[in-house]
Amino acid sequence: MQLQKLPTVGPKTAQRLAFFMLTLPDFETNQIAEAIMEVKKHLSDCNICGTITDINPCHICSNPRRDQQIICVVEQSDDLWAIERTETHKGLYHVLGGVLSPLDGIGPDSLRMSDLFKRVHNNNVKEVILATNWDTEGQATALFLTQQLEKYPVSVTRIAYGIPVGGDLEYIDEVTLAKALEGRRAM
Amino acid sequence: MQLQKLPTVGPKTAQRLAFFMLTLPDFETNQIAEAIMEVKKHLSDCNICGTITDINPCHICSNPRRDQQIICVVEQSDDLWAIERTETHKGLYHVLGGVLSPLDGIGPDSLRMSDLFKRVHNNNVKEVILATNWDTEGQATALFLTQQLEKYPVSVTRIAYGIPVGGDLEYIDEVTLAKALEGRRAM
Repeated sequence: MQLQKLPTVGPKTAQRLAFFMLTLPDFETNQIAEAIMEVKKHLSDCNICGTITDINPCHICSNPRRDQQIICVVEQSDDLWAIERTETHKGLYHVLGGVLSPLDGIGPDSLRMSDLFKRVHNNNVKEVILATNWDTEGQATALFLTQQLEKYPVSVTRIAYGIPVGGDLEYIDEVTLAKALEGRRAM
Repeated sequence: MQLQKLPTVGPKTAQRLAFFMLTLPDFETNQIAEAIMEVKKHLSDCNICGTITDINPCHICSNPRRDQQIICVVEQSDDLWAIERTETHKGLYHVLGGVLSPLDGIGPDSLRMSDLFKRVHNNNVKEVILATNWDTEGQATALFLTQQLEKYPVSVTRIAYGIPVGGDLEYIDEVTLAKALEGRRAM
């Protein structure tokens, strides 16, 4: 069953979706099928940052009011949108398309890293913000990029570890609390 | 029923506990009752930092190997223990006993603030780390303390806002993500 290939859809949900579609009139199932084909037809990866977009370059890369000298590096397009929703990042993005994971055979060449180095080199970028996830692989990828970017005259920063807003100290894991103490800042 | 006064114990749990105690032999119920009385007899607030302790001053305040010039300010004793478990803070603590909350009638005089200022003044303290919770009241208390501490030659720091360890950007609330970006640090 093709529907099982989708994330969060297992055999039971797939069966339920299939039976539901059998109850729909033909034109509605056709609409769904066409929409699925349209997705691939109209969307592509931005040639510059690599995010999923309907125009190329994407709305962010082609916006002259964004700061061209700051690039925020994320793992996937959905991370880019999470940061965009905060409305605090005024620069551009670079989507790696994943993280380093030697066991899965994902090395630097499988990710969009060389494109990043070219952008940094050609556009006189002054800051690269590493916003990969705070897990082992995201952290390893950030460290690798830091080493590689040492060759360029660019400052490399990492989003902060710490207590989430509204968090109660008592319920926060010890590693995060230790990082929050270590990363304390002047008031 | 007296047991209902305890936190997390509602009428049903209280009834269950009471029936359980009826099944215990007398000496065991007496042990429980004695332990409850002992708690109040042997434990008190540390004269220096205000944490709950069995000796006075507490183990931390009386430990000469702790850095006497760094004080970490927390709301309650359980926050102190949360930080102690991280094994990263080498200084002393100061337990406020709550947070500023004008609507509940809790002002600066209801908290152990003047004791803190005396400690800072008398002991040549060089850093006060504000580790109140990251909620509205904890934050307001931290700002108030910062203003009050401006009179003293002490640096005032705040534990870091940010992404908890292992956190996935996509699932983190926007305010935390904005703060993590704002608080980014050089690699």
